[in-house]
Amino acid sequence: MGDQSTVVAVIGGTGALGLGIARRLALAGYPVVIGSRDAARAVAAAAEMNAALGGSAIVGATNSEAAARAEVVFLAVPFASHAAILDEIGPVVSGKIVVDTTVPLQPPKVSTVHLPPEGSVAVATQNRLGSDVRVVSALHNVAAHRLQKDEAVDCDVLVCGNDKDARAIVVTLVDAMGLRGLEAGPLANSVVAEALTSVLIGINRRYKIDGAGIRITGTAKPS
Amino acid sequence: MGDQSTVVAVIGGTGALGLGIARRLALAGYPVVIGSRDAARAVAAAAEMNAALGGSAIVGATNSEAAARAEVVFLAVPFASHAAILDEIGPVVSGKIVVDTTVPLQPPKVSTVHLPPEGSVAVATQNRLGSDVRVVSALHNVAAHRLQKDEAVDCDVLVCGNDKDARAIVVTLVDAMGLRGLEAGPLANSVVAEALTSVLIGINRRYKIDGAGIRITGTAKPS
Repeated sequence: MGDQSTVVAVIGGTGALGLGIARRLALAGYPVVIGSRDAARAVAAAAEMNAALGGSAIVGATNSEAAARAEVVFLAVPFASHAAILDEIGPVVSGKIVVDTTVPLQPPKVSTVHLPPEGSVAVATQNRLGSDVRVVSALHNVAAHRLQKDEAVDCDVLVCGNDKDARAIVVTLVDAMGLRGLEAGPLANSVVAEALTSVLIGINRRYKIDGAGIRITGTAKPS
Repeated sequence: MGDQSTVVAVIGGTGALGLGIARRLALAGYPVVIGSRDAARAVAAAAEMNAALGGSAIVGATNSEAAARAEVVFLAVPFASHAAILDEIGPVVSGKIVVDTTVPLQPPKVSTVHLPPEGSVAVATQNRLGSDVRVVSALHNVAAHRLQKDEAVDCDVLVCGNDKDARAIVVTLVDAMGLRGLEAGPLANSVVAEALTSVLIGINRRYKIDGAGIRITGTAKPS
């Protein structure tokens, strides 16, 4: 799994981040199912994207239909509707990879870190979906508007998960999106990427940056 | 405050990180007091550094004497002795800036994020020292061995604190050390930098990097 025959769903696929993920995965050759609470909106977004990219790789469906059809399910939904959507897709994601991109922003002070009682959204997702779902977290720190454009994004993607194979598959998908995915350890480590988004929002504002991201630096050890 | 007349103490100044901070601040022209539990060790380290750098800007003392003499007090101590050392310097840091560099690593699994019940070490430090101490956090993600060498360090420094003036002074000091300090918001945001160290340790191991760091990326907004 992870090659271009892998069917990918994007739950919340008509939002800014979801559209960016869907577009980049479709461009990389993956069949994509855009999910939305409103199936008609998902179908329209899919048609529009197919027209823009040329092809028919993208289809639209309800969130639960999208999750049912896919092998890898990206979650790109606001924190406020996160728990409800997990309950909606829960019955159809057993054994599948669920990639949670959710950042626990708490308006209005979105530049101050707030974390859920479980320590991170990703851990909360694993608890809620149960241990037979392969939860991975990724893509918290990439500016959605940059993902929607055909341009290089100057941001590494920290990929966390307790299932090493699932984590590696998600790194492959992230790389296919033209980003650099880095395996960043167990799901508990997702707190870094989730909290970092608030810091980046503050830095954007303070230093007048449009879509700050992160890069991991370092010199390769001499072999 | 923040200019080169500012006396700086480095508590735990004979450790790897402490020596790096002391060396770089001394090179930048600041008077530095190295603190250690063992005053003789601190005096010896100061003498050795003065000899290496040429000059007499560095002195050694016990941790509490060092904190008493300085206006800005860097904490570079292991997490295991953190609380005890706060209680030791607490009586002499009222009104001062205390810069906490402590990462809450929990051996043996240091590449998995563990956070204290307060959410971050920096918040725990503020609670323990009381509200009249200006706690700032910084320097969690810089490899100590790189700080001790006269070379560029490819790592940004996230600087968090609830007191904006104190935060700005610490950014000045970090910049003087040849690093790039970035104001990263309130003390609660320190969780990002504290947790990131575990992720970087894992990345060092997994990708065979010697001292991975982070850079904040982004394009300046057109004015």
